Amino acid sequence: MAGNSFGEIFRITTFGESHGKAIGVIIDGCPPNVTVDEEFIQNELDKRKPGQSKITTQRKESDTCQILSGVFEGKTTGTPIAIIIPNEDQKSKDYDHNKDVFRPSHADYVYHQKYGIRDHRGGGRSSARETAARVAAGAIAKLALKQVGIEIAAHVSSVGTIDAPHVDISSVSEFEALRESNIARCADPATANEMIALIDSVRKAGDTIGGKVSCTVKNCPVGLGEPVFDKLHADLGKAMLSINAVHGFDYGSGFDGSTMRGSEHNDIFDVDTDGKVITRTNFSGGIQGGISNGMDINFRVAFKPVATIMTNQQTINKDGQIDEIKGKGRHDPCVVPRAVAIVEAMAALVVLDHYLRNKVYR
Amino acid sequence: MAGNSFGEIFRITTFGESHGKAIGVIIDGCPPNVTVDEEFIQNELDKRKPGQSKITTQRKESDTCQILSGVFEGKTTGTPIAIIIPNEDQKSKDYDHNKDVFRPSHADYVYHQKYGIRDHRGGGRSSARETAARVAAGAIAKLALKQVGIEIAAHVSSVGTIDAPHVDISSVSEFEALRESNIARCADPATANEMIALIDSVRKAGDTIGGKVSCTVKNCPVGLGEPVFDKLHADLGKAMLSINAVHGFDYGSGFDGSTMRGSEHNDIFDVDTDGKVITRTNFSGGIQGGISNGMDINFRVAFKPVATIMTNQQTINKDGQIDEIKGKGRHDPCVVPRAVAIVEAMAALVVLDHYLRNKVYR
Amino acid sequence: MAGNSFGEIFRITTFGESHGKAIGVIIDGCPPNVTVDEEFIQNELDKRKPGQSKITTQRKESDTCQILSGVFEGKTTGTPIAIIIPNEDQKSKDYDHNKDVFRPSHADYVYHQKYGIRDHRGGGRSSARETAARVAAGAIAKLALKQVGIEIAAHVSSVGTIDAPHVDISSVSEFEALRESNIARCADPATANEMIALIDSVRKAGDTIGGKVSCTVKNCPVGLGEPVFDKLHADLGKAMLSINAVHGFDYGSGFDGSTMRGSEHNDIFDVDTDGKVITRTNFSGGIQGGISNGMDINFRVAFKPVATIMTNQQTINKDGQIDEIKGKGRHDPCVVPRAVAIVEAMAALVVLDHYLRNKVYR
Amino acid sequence: MAGNSFGEIFRITTFGESHGKAIGVIIDGCPPNVTVDEEFIQNELDKRKPGQSKITTQRKESDTCQILSGVFEGKTTGTPIAIIIPNEDQKSKDYDHNKDVFRPSHADYVYHQKYGIRDHRGGGRSSARETAARVAAGAIAKLALKQVGIEIAAHVSSVGTIDAPHVDISSVSEFEALRESNIARCADPATANEMIALIDSVRKAGDTIGGKVSCTVKNCPVGLGEPVFDKLHADLGKAMLSINAVHGFDYGSGFDGSTMRGSEHNDIFDVDTDGKVITRTNFSGGIQGGISNGMDINFRVAFKPVATIMTNQQTINKDGQIDEIKGKGRHDPCVVPRAVAIVEAMAALVVLDHYLRNKVYR
Repeated sequence: MAGNSFGEIFRITTFGESHGKAIGVIIDGCPPNVTVDEEFIQNELDKRKPGQSKITTQRKESDTCQILSGVFEGKTTGTPIAIIIPNEDQKSKDYDHNKDVFRPSHADYVYHQKYGIRDHRGGGRSSARETAARVAAGAIAKLALKQVGIEIAAHVSSVGTIDAPHVDISSVSEFEALRESNIARCADPATANEMIALIDSVRKAGDTIGGKVSCTVKNCPVGLGEPVFDKLHADLGKAMLSINAVHGFDYGSGFDGSTMRGSEHNDIFDVDTDGKVITRTNFSGGIQGGISNGMDINFRVAFKPVATIMTNQQTINKDGQIDEIKGKGRHDPCVVPRAVAIVEAMAALVVLDHYLRNKVYR
Repeated sequence: MAGNSFGEIFRITTFGESHGKAIGVIIDGCPPNVTVDEEFIQNELDKRKPGQSKITTQRKESDTCQILSGVFEGKTTGTPIAIIIPNEDQKSKDYDHNKDVFRPSHADYVYHQKYGIRDHRGGGRSSARETAARVAAGAIAKLALKQVGIEIAAHVSSVGTIDAPHVDISSVSEFEALRESNIARCADPATANEMIALIDSVRKAGDTIGGKVSCTVKNCPVGLGEPVFDKLHADLGKAMLSINAVHGFDYGSGFDGSTMRGSEHNDIFDVDTDGKVITRTNFSGGIQGGISNGMDINFRVAFKPVATIMTNQQTINKDGQIDEIKGKGRHDPCVVPRAVAIVEAMAALVVLDHYLRNKVYR
Repeated sequence: MAGNSFGEIFRITTFGESHGKAIGVIIDGCPPNVTVDEEFIQNELDKRKPGQSKITTQRKESDTCQILSGVFEGKTTGTPIAIIIPNEDQKSKDYDHNKDVFRPSHADYVYHQKYGIRDHRGGGRSSARETAARVAAGAIAKLALKQVGIEIAAHVSSVGTIDAPHVDISSVSEFEALRESNIARCADPATANEMIALIDSVRKAGDTIGGKVSCTVKNCPVGLGEPVFDKLHADLGKAMLSINAVHGFDYGSGFDGSTMRGSEHNDIFDVDTDGKVITRTNFSGGIQGGISNGMDINFRVAFKPVATIMTNQQTINKDGQIDEIKGKGRHDPCVVPRAVAIVEAMAALVVLDHYLRNKVYR
Repeated sequence: MAGNSFGEIFRITTFGESHGKAIGVIIDGCPPNVTVDEEFIQNELDKRKPGQSKITTQRKESDTCQILSGVFEGKTTGTPIAIIIPNEDQKSKDYDHNKDVFRPSHADYVYHQKYGIRDHRGGGRSSARETAARVAAGAIAKLALKQVGIEIAAHVSSVGTIDAPHVDISSVSEFEALRESNIARCADPATANEMIALIDSVRKAGDTIGGKVSCTVKNCPVGLGEPVFDKLHADLGKAMLSINAVHGFDYGSGFDGSTMRGSEHNDIFDVDTDGKVITRTNFSGGIQGGISNGMDINFRVAFKPVATIMTNQQTINKDGQIDEIKGKGRHDPCVVPRAVAIVEAMAALVVLDHYLRNKVYR
């Protein structure tokens, strides 16, 4: 009800503020006997953590996670898994300036109006720092999915108006290697260089820029997704739209599909050489009627530019009067390179949840 | 869990198949003392019903709804409201051809695989006929919202590559009058004519075409939406993506926002002549940090072309063998004119649900 | 949230008022391919329906149910099952007397205070008539459980201070035959005669009397129940306490167990001649740590006397002033003979729901 | 779904095993601006903690809790409150004996069967140690209830066959003072002495004994509880039955009510000298039709004797073979003195949750 939980069977609840003692997550409903590879979890967190390159925020957080429960002798037991990530580098003083004034296009004003109280330090609960807890939970979900052969891979497909060409993803490990070869996390290295140059110039101007992340789920079995409201793409959409700064989501043919005709858009069924049912095209994005059809699931996520800029801006204060806010603090010039890990984590949560939901019908 | 319910407090559960006895909905959690205007409900259903113009399917359904419970002497009592809509014009014979073969880009194949059984007649549960139940529930939600001054209005903003210009919506009644002046349901009559011509030519070719619906929520108070997962736009997104044929959703600056810089995207706070806090621009689409900020809420919904076309297509059958399916039945050449009512209904469900959720903090 | 739904996976939502057009239920999450025996469902409803004997209310309702969706060619399809039961014998005039005054120990006063509006006819939504919808849903649950060998049987174990001796239930069909041999629905015919005489004398005095129902679940597999809050007995308890007039629930050793010592109460594990793990005694009532252990599940449900009596009583009216209410209407002198079907139905809902929940771990 | 969460609006999720790093709880949905008195929370935990007297287990745990989030400058912010309680005195070696054999009337066997893996140390997740997390969350709920005048008080009303007489509870503080004056936590000191003597003799015999806790909720406003499934007493019943070792629950007239007649059981409405609507008797236990009526809410909870005894017992092992288990470890001879705090905590969770749910109708 209060919105800090996600999922039906594999259900996570996150907690924590940007400058409180810790952030973290409880996972309830993780299947027993999943092997917990703590190095893998930390590696996922490292992809999201701040301070990892010149094009991310310079806040330093090791984002070292600690598992408090639900794992016994290296395996999940079916009981709740609690994970905490202590906050380390809290320069709360940096945020004295937004105690009484509201930063434009941030959540300061609406939190103040909704709750009548807010922890203003670093955005408090509305900080994207909360997504570290999602990445930790998503890492556990990925480990569970790996045991049944399902893989998820995303990369930065656009920064501003720079769009990457389509990148083949028949091998997830090769795709990931290409993506991790550059700090933009674009699997097309030539485009990555352009992106890095753009982000760097934007950063030097004290400005920020938006971008897009594209994601693919591979080896998803037929049948995941629950009609009529909990369609697989509807839950993926909600998951992505719940990530800070996301303004758009589409899957398969997406927005472009709205300009097409049925005769070109229909995915003709066929049988491949192994006798597996496939479709010749995949405008459906691997999902038909809200249920996975066994093809690759493809979707895109659009991020707006980060609101914190290094320029003074007019705003209002707690008394409803016009005021000014100074550009301060440590923030990302472009959020998408770090968001790749978050998109993958949320996708893993949705797919695993629906995988478990579908077991009920067996 | 099985996906046929939507909402937390104002919670609907729909039921029914395209060619069964009836479809319908139970609303649990409707506030008491909402005046129930049955004529208004029927009017909403009429905007969605089939057979209303030459550019919609010719299936004839009066879609007359009957309220079985929860209303006493014209007012809601706080108990569950059950509404049924009998199915009348069921030409089930028309669907004998898809009993054993799966229509391309339909849900036939995945339902068969997921459940091991399916009502093939007219798509059974996967038919968009189910959305009539949503429109009935949405009409009750609209009546409840009207009592607190919140209004919702959508129209067809694109058909294929024909895009309507921005239409002013300062008066909802004027906007609706313009929209209802034409069968395309576009509030810009000149564009509507182009759209109608395009749909008609597509229909004559036995083909179908996609389009977009744009929607605005007006007079939404500050504070609706629950961080961090149940952000207002995340729930709107899920609601829209759960509608048949929807492939994309964005709000505020949307996908375009991902190409912008923070310095142009930030919505500067200001105070209007009545002393009300506003933002000078509205790239945030009325939602910041997942919570409404009092500005108009704007979003777009992208629909793919309807999959049923009047052409023979290759497909597979129940035995996993390649087969052919003939173009038959009565279907829409373009779904967006009828979808306007569905988009508004789902928006009303989300906004009312969050309105009620927000009461807990008062 | 508004309380008209029950269950997590096999989830029912009931609707309807005592004197409205119909009552009914939607089941969401019923597994596909359950054979639907409509005669069986009607037979279950007949055990609960009014007017069945001289010791029940004389209201006449055939309680004929109609399935509107979710069943295709005699089998469930995995989509929502809607069932409606029209109201026939509504002597609403009989209830004019409680339009403005509140019947003692009824829900009239609290509904009025909670909602500010109420359908006073026959108690409206608070009428035990609502439980017919539960029995219909429970019948479907029983059919699904039967397919996996789980059986449920209850009977009247007490009326007033008349207690039945322990009745063997190794054969459910023999137990049911004994129970259905008398209108008290007690599986011990000698005690049944005493009960009938007592109820009849109470009825003639215009009074009512309480009683108890005892229930057993047989062949429940090991592992049903979710620690720590959704323990199997906790969900059974909630289910039973949600039935009108129920004031108490215990299982296994129950209230008596609170007077025992650990050395006598512990159920020693053993292995039977088939190699199956059993316990020598069953003070645990088939549930340990909230999870079924494979033994018979036993519990008791205590019903208070029906509040409607044929005597004039002091009360208050809508204006908060002292008033008088006349003894009128058609009501049960003792509710337990009809409640047997309701107890079994609710038990079936809980056990099937947990059976399905447990599938997730396989 | 996996059962570790409780509540709809004020929703808690607990985590942790008896001998893991920590146990704890996340509260989601706590209203903002509740003053958090950490001393009060610790005081509640102290009433439940082990080692507090000669009649409780001698395990030593300070049960010091730490709040990680959701509280800012001493007040709740409306965001999730995470509380952890580290485990200190883990004599895990004490439990080597039950690694491969299952303790009778414990959850060892069913956990092993359900999950295929279990943390055997101290019962792992099935340990009553988990209830410390509930007490911490309940303390926050009590603080929120106190701000609206609602009070909750329980005491030990029976140990074995020793029953306390009715104790007046018109002043909660006087009642609590009497209860805290003795280690049995019975508000009738004379009976308390008998109880202590009995528990002590049972302890010396290496045995255990059951008992009952009675609880009262005072100043509950009219209108809490949601028909038809989430009746206030149904949710109280589930809450109590979810506590380790509880085998029974009744409210108001309870099991005794099932032997009464309507003419004696009906609670006649009246108006007190302040003009407040009351009932002359309170067999309804403050709840009618599942909704609070403004009178004191009364209920009883029956606890079976603790299963761990200091005697060798036959059992089975992991291989399904008959084995023997030795009486070892540190356990309570009688659980009810410590359970008083748990009963109050669970009652606070239910009442606050329904208090918040009822706000939706205002």
